[in-house]
Amino acid sequence: MKPLAVSMGDPAGIGLELAARVWAERDAGTTPFFLVGDADAFARACKRLGVAMPTLNVVTSAEAVGAGDALTVLHTALAVEETPGEPDPVNADAVIRAIERGVEAARTGAASALVTLPIAKAVLHTADFGFPGHTEFIAHLTKDDSWPQARGPVMMLAGPSLKVALATIHTPLAQVAGKLDRLSLVQTGRVVAEALRRDFGIEHPRIALCGLNPHAGEEGNIGREEIDTINPAAAILRTESWKVSDAQSADALFHDAARAKYDAVIALYHDQGLIPIKTLHFWDAVNVTLGLPIVRTSPDHGTGFDIAGKGIARADSFRAALTLAWQMAERRART
Amino acid sequence: MKPLAVSMGDPAGIGLELAARVWAERDAGTTPFFLVGDADAFARACKRLGVAMPTLNVVTSAEAVGAGDALTVLHTALAVEETPGEPDPVNADAVIRAIERGVEAARTGAASALVTLPIAKAVLHTADFGFPGHTEFIAHLTKDDSWPQARGPVMMLAGPSLKVALATIHTPLAQVAGKLDRLSLVQTGRVVAEALRRDFGIEHPRIALCGLNPHAGEEGNIGREEIDTINPAAAILRTESWKVSDAQSADALFHDAARAKYDAVIALYHDQGLIPIKTLHFWDAVNVTLGLPIVRTSPDHGTGFDIAGKGIARADSFRAALTLAWQMAERRART
Repeated sequence: MKPLAVSMGDPAGIGLELAARVWAERDAGTTPFFLVGDADAFARACKRLGVAMPTLNVVTSAEAVGAGDALTVLHTALAVEETPGEPDPVNADAVIRAIERGVEAARTGAASALVTLPIAKAVLHTADFGFPGHTEFIAHLTKDDSWPQARGPVMMLAGPSLKVALATIHTPLAQVAGKLDRLSLVQTGRVVAEALRRDFGIEHPRIALCGLNPHAGEEGNIGREEIDTINPAAAILRTESWKVSDAQSADALFHDAARAKYDAVIALYHDQGLIPIKTLHFWDAVNVTLGLPIVRTSPDHGTGFDIAGKGIARADSFRAALTLAWQMAERRART
Repeated sequence: MKPLAVSMGDPAGIGLELAARVWAERDAGTTPFFLVGDADAFARACKRLGVAMPTLNVVTSAEAVGAGDALTVLHTALAVEETPGEPDPVNADAVIRAIERGVEAARTGAASALVTLPIAKAVLHTADFGFPGHTEFIAHLTKDDSWPQARGPVMMLAGPSLKVALATIHTPLAQVAGKLDRLSLVQTGRVVAEALRRDFGIEHPRIALCGLNPHAGEEGNIGREEIDTINPAAAILRTESWKVSDAQSADALFHDAARAKYDAVIALYHDQGLIPIKTLHFWDAVNVTLGLPIVRTSPDHGTGFDIAGKGIARADSFRAALTLAWQMAERRART
């Protein structure tokens, strides 16, 4: 197994210090990774954090990435030195380039998978970054690669006791109902089911599907989307032999006893999925992109500009993202 | 303090057996209550549950309710004997009558407060019950009573570590955005804030207000309701000296550290509030009606027709509903 590629994210955020911390505290159980980013910015992050400066193996091509005691950095130069907490649009190109090179490393097999550190969309948009976020950008970069299964991207948040995938992501609430249709729900269901089997090793995954309306519409009394769209999509998925429930009352799906009955939930909109995962696993959930030719995970938090450079950012989610990406890549390598 | 009135709810559900269990297991700390319902149905519930038949003090007027070792039953006769798990619309009138008499007892002071056991709306609607549920019916029954503070009803779910009030309740998701307006949000905020002070004893309550859209709209990039409606409502409430936040990302409001920063949340729609409360407090949350001249609570679960008569229904939430109603009534009595 090759190491993971870790893209630096916004250098003014907490990403580089998370990488510096995890590298400084590594032991035999730490997932192997290399950094795609600016080697000097990483060194500055180590200095700010007060950890010993690691030996860096600075390379300019992913083919040169090797194992060893040094941290390999696939050098991707910033335009200007970062200031923690003050993102600079001048560095947007380098941030984007680090993602592109990380994706490329994963596509060519130079890396087993990609873990992305947080970016600030508002900053990237000044560089004509025409994507809502990492997920869509990475899907774009891999769209011509062959992929024999249902193609995503589908965003999943995975924590120790809950996995929740989203049918819509950054959609204003008023537009959610209009965006749901039977075929796209079926496609989401296929991507989630196949990923649970392929990447998570669950041979017969059980999927709970959320309703859209209070009490899943109460048989049509509080909205008809369950009857017209959601349950028919579930029925199609069941004809494909996937274990998918009809629309469930979302409020009754997330306590301990309910979670024992499924392997993952499909939520229909952002807060429906992110409220329970962040209530239960605020610090250690992982953002996973399902249904792409490469494995990609990410910590489930933002750039943390308000705490960047202070050495107080928690690395739980980044560590979990490394572990999960490695596990998923291992499973793909075996099959 | 007079005892609480407990309305029987649907006799084919778990309500009467919950009352029977709590009465059978009562000790010095159990909240005093009397039952508004069918005395024979209660006796049958005791028998099914296998508990000793209590001495009943069957009365026909709330004025006759007294203390003592017997359970007082304000007798409200069913039309036909109940069958657990099989609700009978023929009994709908008695179910409604029990609520009316419970409300009347609380209004006149014969009861300190009302705790309602679960009803099945679908059954009551066959009796031309023209209300979405208990909350609206009780508001109707008390609408002409004087009430010097902001008038609800506002529905709150209260658990040991979270209180969440709802700005909309049984609204199809597609209609939620259209139902939110500045003035009704201000009114909801007033009801919640006053109730926290008056009924919960929190002199300077801190209220977190949920955003509607992902990331609370990201400054207008993912919906404008926060800018146009929600934040202006919060600003008005702050001019009235209430501590109310601007719209917050709802997914970041419910983990342990976040909950420490407020006394209650106002969620904008059903699942936004009920997902976190039921994730955290599935068994022991209480449904509370805020802003009415009478105190009313209810267990936060339904009729449980699927488990009725089996003796397996958990009484946690009903016990918590009794305790909370008593505490709220005590606070009102003191002021």
